[in-house]
Amino acid sequence: MVLCATSHPGNIGASARAMRAMGLSRLVLVCPRAFPHPEADARAADATELLRAAMVVPTLEDALAGATLAIGFSARPREFAGAVLSVRDAAFEALGHAVSGEVALVFGAEMSGLSNAELARCQIVATIPGERGHASLNLAAAVQVAAYELFVAAHGDIVWNAPAFEPAKLEEIEALFAHAERTLVAMRLLNPQQPKRLLPRLRRLFARARLEKAEVDILRGILARIDQLLDRQSRSNPHRD
Amino acid sequence: MVLCATSHPGNIGASARAMRAMGLSRLVLVCPRAFPHPEADARAADATELLRAAMVVPTLEDALAGATLAIGFSARPREFAGAVLSVRDAAFEALGHAVSGEVALVFGAEMSGLSNAELARCQIVATIPGERGHASLNLAAAVQVAAYELFVAAHGDIVWNAPAFEPAKLEEIEALFAHAERTLVAMRLLNPQQPKRLLPRLRRLFARARLEKAEVDILRGILARIDQLLDRQSRSNPHRD
Repeated sequence: MVLCATSHPGNIGASARAMRAMGLSRLVLVCPRAFPHPEADARAADATELLRAAMVVPTLEDALAGATLAIGFSARPREFAGAVLSVRDAAFEALGHAVSGEVALVFGAEMSGLSNAELARCQIVATIPGERGHASLNLAAAVQVAAYELFVAAHGDIVWNAPAFEPAKLEEIEALFAHAERTLVAMRLLNPQQPKRLLPRLRRLFARARLEKAEVDILRGILARIDQLLDRQSRSNPHRD
Repeated sequence: MVLCATSHPGNIGASARAMRAMGLSRLVLVCPRAFPHPEADARAADATELLRAAMVVPTLEDALAGATLAIGFSARPREFAGAVLSVRDAAFEALGHAVSGEVALVFGAEMSGLSNAELARCQIVATIPGERGHASLNLAAAVQVAAYELFVAAHGDIVWNAPAFEPAKLEEIEALFAHAERTLVAMRLLNPQQPKRLLPRLRRLFARARLEKAEVDILRGILARIDQLLDRQSRSNPHRD
């Protein structure tokens, strides 16, 4: 990641944090206005080591030495003969290229972005989709989106798994519905002669929820308790029915 | 966007800016520690109007009133029975749902994230892919990624077009190569009896570059100038050859 002429040291720190969260490590600063700086350290959070390892160079040319592909970020259309890609497509390009050479992602100063001279050193212009005519992204926010897209390009759109619960077997679910039907009849919520749509609606709800084994047990426990209450009631009021 | 118990007003401002850049407008703050605040205004940049319109409420329940889907963001695995989606998939879910109801994207406090009680109010947990075990994203950076994914889900991965240049016609390109071959022979860079791989390499280079009409004109201009120089040279040194 190459940040050119960054004005606010806080943005350098926040960029370092964004990089670290996405597994990137090499930060190059071209002529930062103030670095190192306590504000950069504060915003870097746990990425202070990455920040300390950041290289400071006087020109973009120095920053790009050794790289074989430079991708410049720009929020607005520019007179530029190279390819303009979305940040997502640019991340895939970068990843493909990184197999054979070093790739630099280049960001301009907060207020002005990359100059035409800086952009001319880039082979690809990348842009982050967003609302036209509105304020552009904060620098560190743009670095975050780019780093995130690189991570997803490299590792896929992975998420941690939800805790694994044992799904209910279909016969357990059918036994639950049979039980529910008996109990609903006993509760006089369901008339077996005119069943209407109550049971199909309940089936639909629980089908959508993909019942787990433990949930079936909970629901059957509730039904059993209702059965017990109905049983007690009918015994205490033997003539009522 | 619902931000719960935000500690740093700067993050509220930066979130507002991230939202505005992606065409979002409704910000709800649950028990912010300090709001309004000059730091929030400063980081909001052009999104001060959005910030001023932000609703401040005492509980998440208040924030979610009227919504029919709440998507909670969490950086780490949680004991949660609902679906866990990547932010990209969650953005598509949100968009699909937004046709028929209001969707809330819910973010927890900077240090602790959403509590289990807060997450239990969400039907979906979304997570932003990133390096495991590393520091998580800054709150406003996470809001930026989520807002960006919503924008891309809604509008597609659109970029502004590069300035449109007229591509060269294939016959113009062939005429260029024929011209180049003549000139290279005259320059004694190419031996027509032993052409080797010079012309195929040049063809490959220019095929990859997808020549524009204006570029063909420039290259032919250069060739014509070389022709002229060669012509002059052979006239001033008539016996050399």
